[in-house]
Amino acid sequence: MFARTPTPPYWAVIFSSQRSAVEQGYADMGERMVELAAEQPGFLGVESVRDADGFGITVSYWDSEAAIAAWKANSEHQLAQRQGFAQWYAGFELRVAEVGRVHSWRKPQAGTDAAGQG
Amino acid sequence: MFARTPTPPYWAVIFSSQRSAVEQGYADMGERMVELAAEQPGFLGVESVRDADGFGITVSYWDSEAAIAAWKANSEHQLAQRQGFAQWYAGFELRVAEVGRVHSWRKPQAGTDAAGQG
Repeated sequence: MFARTPTPPYWAVIFSSQRSAVEQGYADMGERMVELAAEQPGFLGVESVRDADGFGITVSYWDSEAAIAAWKANSEHQLAQRQGFAQWYAGFELRVAEVGRVHSWRKPQAGTDAAGQG
Repeated sequence: MFARTPTPPYWAVIFSSQRSAVEQGYADMGERMVELAAEQPGFLGVESVRDADGFGITVSYWDSEAAIAAWKANSEHQLAQRQGFAQWYAGFELRVAEVGRVHSWRKPQAGTDAAGQG
């Protein structure tokens, strides 16, 4: 679920969206877009969540702005063959941002604490 | 649900998290954190979603890095009084990023299309 991203700086595409009522073709498109992203040079990972009301946030991570531009060109070509990306959404915001700092935390596993217990 | 953010540049804090099993105090803490953010100078808005498996992404938007730093200091003070933020999470990634470009789209409403129908 968490993307395994390198030490910053790197780039993020924050895609916030509200789904439309159109189901036909959505799952297929979503799968293809993730496959396509993962094949692109410079792709670092993706985190994605959507709630029961159809609001979702997907953040994809990239090693450069050039990688994002190449992915955009490639995905738009694919989407053009699918008769309009917009049909699946009531609205979206797509923000391109440069990640400068990260703070990561994971709960210590039982048996790996300092006291060696578990 | 969508944050009404201004023309870039501005800043984003991308908080990706997996919840722990601890429910006690979580909803109260979450509400208080959102209130606290909204009171901070430089707060621009927030978008948040969590799925049924407890994985969530919250993106808050800020007009400067200084505003994020002030919010961090303030929220950590508050959280210190709540005996540990980490209890509510199995893990998280917090990324600070500068938003440089945005593409917004909303489905046209019936009656507001170019032909004036509806």
